[in-house]
Amino acid sequence: MTQHDIKEIARTAHALAEAARGVVLPYFRSAGLSAENKLSEGFDPVTAADKAAEQVMRSVLAEQRPDDAIIGEEFGVRAGRSGLTWVLDPIDGTRGFLAGTPTWGILISVCDAGGPIFGMIDQPYVGERFWGGFGEAEMTGPMGESSLRVRGSRALSEAILFTTFPEVGSTAERAGFEAVAQHVKLTRFGMDCYAYALLAAGQIDLVIEAGLSNYDICAPIALIEAAGGIVTDWKGGKAHDGGRVLAAAGPEQHRAALNILSHFS
Amino acid sequence: MTQHDIKEIARTAHALAEAARGVVLPYFRSAGLSAENKLSEGFDPVTAADKAAEQVMRSVLAEQRPDDAIIGEEFGVRAGRSGLTWVLDPIDGTRGFLAGTPTWGILISVCDAGGPIFGMIDQPYVGERFWGGFGEAEMTGPMGESSLRVRGSRALSEAILFTTFPEVGSTAERAGFEAVAQHVKLTRFGMDCYAYALLAAGQIDLVIEAGLSNYDICAPIALIEAAGGIVTDWKGGKAHDGGRVLAAAGPEQHRAALNILSHFS
Repeated sequence: MTQHDIKEIARTAHALAEAARGVVLPYFRSAGLSAENKLSEGFDPVTAADKAAEQVMRSVLAEQRPDDAIIGEEFGVRAGRSGLTWVLDPIDGTRGFLAGTPTWGILISVCDAGGPIFGMIDQPYVGERFWGGFGEAEMTGPMGESSLRVRGSRALSEAILFTTFPEVGSTAERAGFEAVAQHVKLTRFGMDCYAYALLAAGQIDLVIEAGLSNYDICAPIALIEAAGGIVTDWKGGKAHDGGRVLAAAGPEQHRAALNILSHFS
Repeated sequence: MTQHDIKEIARTAHALAEAARGVVLPYFRSAGLSAENKLSEGFDPVTAADKAAEQVMRSVLAEQRPDDAIIGEEFGVRAGRSGLTWVLDPIDGTRGFLAGTPTWGILISVCDAGGPIFGMIDQPYVGERFWGGFGEAEMTGPMGESSLRVRGSRALSEAILFTTFPEVGSTAERAGFEAVAQHVKLTRFGMDCYAYALLAAGQIDLVIEAGLSNYDICAPIALIEAAGGIVTDWKGGKAHDGGRVLAAAGPEQHRAALNILSHFS
């Protein structure tokens, strides 16, 4: 891949995020926001904002990247022939979005046959965007632009750990998470994709989740790897197909968490 | 209290928030942020930012409101003779602050002998400020200024419930929270004072917490009451001394949650 190709991918990703922002923000904290129930059991809200944001991103890709494939949370797969696939989650953290918290995100990533090569997490309300790939990660936000770097190795006893909700997943998955949480300095909840952005930005050490889909995790993987971090499943293998995910700011936290989680796999 | 007095209180509160913002923001997400351990057990970080922010607010009050009393989280009580007390929490949600989440807040409130009469929640990084008292509540943020109003009564089965961490407090307090959570549509975690701002802003229905101090809850009480909501303890009494708190967007959610929580008091 040439420098020109890399620049073009980043340029398109920013264009997608801008287009999605314009569509999503008018819905955020609006009075009439409704949520359908996508699953027969449980509460999985799909808002008009989700759908509209994915549609506008698909339109931009149809024009600018007609040869690339697309996988989107709401509208599924479009085939391509370039070997590259854009993996889109128009609103990761729809429950947070519905509750008005500023911790949901627009997830945009590009994968090749080996997995994610570029990822972006955009938080339109705060005006923050985190992106990375090809060995470089950056952000822009209320305090300006900066490059991103994970905080690096440290002992599990000094680590800050995040997951989105205390149940985590199955009974075994919850037990695995809680076994790690026993050993860390601080455990926090409720951030959805924003936790991965904080990890890439050097703020926290570990994110442990389960039951993810590919569109939930491809963007975080590319972003965190470009910032120097590690993302695997709970056995140390590739995580870009989703499922159980362990993201770490350094080899020491990763190894220590993996040692515990592997008993719950 | 005259209209002039009310305006002066609001003006001073904005001045305090501005002063605290200027002190706190340079610390947020800075690499060298350290946390002392205030309690002998557990993890209660007090950062330099906390202390500096309370000091600057105390300086502003010494100049602009020399007759008012002050209660602050970090530096305790200053006596007054006006009958009014400024209750300050320079950073509510220090753990979130240390983890880089944008959901901590500067809490500023004014109490008279009966309790809180004015409250402000300021989130400097997002650039949001929520304030209310004397029957009016407003906010300013990335999408401009607006008045605040709670969403009003609705069934518990349609409610969105927040608390900060799943343990909530004692074993009985956790059980009480979980008994309410069983009946709501959606439960979310991790927002500290930001959850009260979301309730005042009409986004969510219930916040249930325990183990609070007066400086954690005085500002949310005044803000939420000014936006039309209800804040009590778990028995329906006054909550401004802290302890167990139930905040609700309408009488129906409040009554339903209280019916459940009263079994755990």
